[in-house]
Amino acid sequence: MNAGNSMIMTAGELRELRADIEDFHSAYCAMLDEGHLDQWPDHFTEDAIYRVTSRENFDAGLPAGLVYAEGRTMLRDRAYAIGNTQMFAPRTVLHYVANVRVLGAEGGCVVARANYLLLQTLIEGPTTLHQAGCYHDVFVRRAGRLLLRERQCVYDTALVANDLVYPV
Amino acid sequence: MNAGNSMIMTAGELRELRADIEDFHSAYCAMLDEGHLDQWPDHFTEDAIYRVTSRENFDAGLPAGLVYAEGRTMLRDRAYAIGNTQMFAPRTVLHYVANVRVLGAEGGCVVARANYLLLQTLIEGPTTLHQAGCYHDVFVRRAGRLLLRERQCVYDTALVANDLVYPV
Amino acid sequence: MNAGNSMIMTAGELRELRADIEDFHSAYCAMLDEGHLDQWPDHFTEDAIYRVTSRENFDAGLPAGLVYAEGRTMLRDRAYAIGNTQMFAPRTVLHYVANVRVLGAEGGCVVARANYLLLQTLIEGPTTLHQAGCYHDVFVRRAGRLLLRERQCVYDTALVANDLVYPV
Repeated sequence: MNAGNSMIMTAGELRELRADIEDFHSAYCAMLDEGHLDQWPDHFTEDAIYRVTSRENFDAGLPAGLVYAEGRTMLRDRAYAIGNTQMFAPRTVLHYVANVRVLGAEGGCVVARANYLLLQTLIEGPTTLHQAGCYHDVFVRRAGRLLLRERQCVYDTALVANDLVYPV
Repeated sequence: MNAGNSMIMTAGELRELRADIEDFHSAYCAMLDEGHLDQWPDHFTEDAIYRVTSRENFDAGLPAGLVYAEGRTMLRDRAYAIGNTQMFAPRTVLHYVANVRVLGAEGGCVVARANYLLLQTLIEGPTTLHQAGCYHDVFVRRAGRLLLRERQCVYDTALVANDLVYPV
Repeated sequence: MNAGNSMIMTAGELRELRADIEDFHSAYCAMLDEGHLDQWPDHFTEDAIYRVTSRENFDAGLPAGLVYAEGRTMLRDRAYAIGNTQMFAPRTVLHYVANVRVLGAEGGCVVARANYLLLQTLIEGPTTLHQAGCYHDVFVRRAGRLLLRERQCVYDTALVANDLVYPV
């Protein structure tokens, strides 16, 4: 998808689109921050791709990443598995999204980026910067509502695989 | 207050409302970051409630919290007390607000949330993540200007009571 | 420049202006985050002033700061020098901008502020809060596009001079 050239929108339409994407991020993050993991897959299309990749691998063109899910069913399985282990239980998370950019829109798809910050607090423990990175998103609109057809979370932070179970 | 159902607004009005709330946050945070504590109570209604509560207590339905102020007079006393001790003097603060969400609007009240990040720098010391949490706000409009009728700061970070003197 | 009084704009125009400034920040930060240092000077006017100053010095009215560049040529030299040493190479950066405020607009200039957060990740190292501060900006519009005529980065964090080579 071309980033920009094919975008035939007025400045006003572009502002509205960015505002809609910001609303999506806020709702998505609140869902995760409040622990409603079962609603996580609802933010994706049926055939969505979800990836978490280090910047190093991303820059090297390695697509796979540490987390890879294809299709809403895989996301549902993942959400269910996380929700039914106690692995993530003794922590709370807070997401912060900034610098939302619309890169292009074509054929009903919107390519956008945003920087995210994920803080984690262990119960009676310190709050730490858990993951910092950039969302590489492709949105589509279904019944007026934005959904992720693709989300690649490209993180700068050096994570251990264990910590990646929780959605970004 | 119902979150959503009673909100009869167009998409455009909702975008404008969110923008107004973002402007409120930016002005409020700048006031605190620049040390104008005497102006802090002016951002609240006369009968406002201000609370700072841990997520743990909030989730358990315990309303009180570590900081509780009812009415602008209490906020003024508090601001005066802080401004006249040296407790907070040798530090600077920076607030960051993200993920602003309008949850509902009814009878002139607007229920909204936002994630906040409060950094603190001790003079010649390190900058640390002082408090991270979620604003649970109720706004009203007075003479065209948004004011807080209720602000509950629900924080994830494990704070000691001492650190809570400074407004969030 | 007067901050506010001389601003003759409707609420809608002000919202659009803030949205444009937010878009500027997002593009500027992405450029730095993605390492396109050669494009850095293009975000400034020919006669722009760029400064990085500690809050302590700023509050004391000391204008100079640790970094000072006057004119796009100096910025180009600086970008070239950084791009051709390996000083910054083994790190990645992420910028987060929040709390964008338009303080005034007069004679084609827009005075604005925003809080920024700069994270740095050393290769195979930890992600740290590298610099936190407030942009004090003066924008002008050239051919429909916002450019910085002045950017003063007032930081709270205690930095060593070495770390300041990379643009904020």
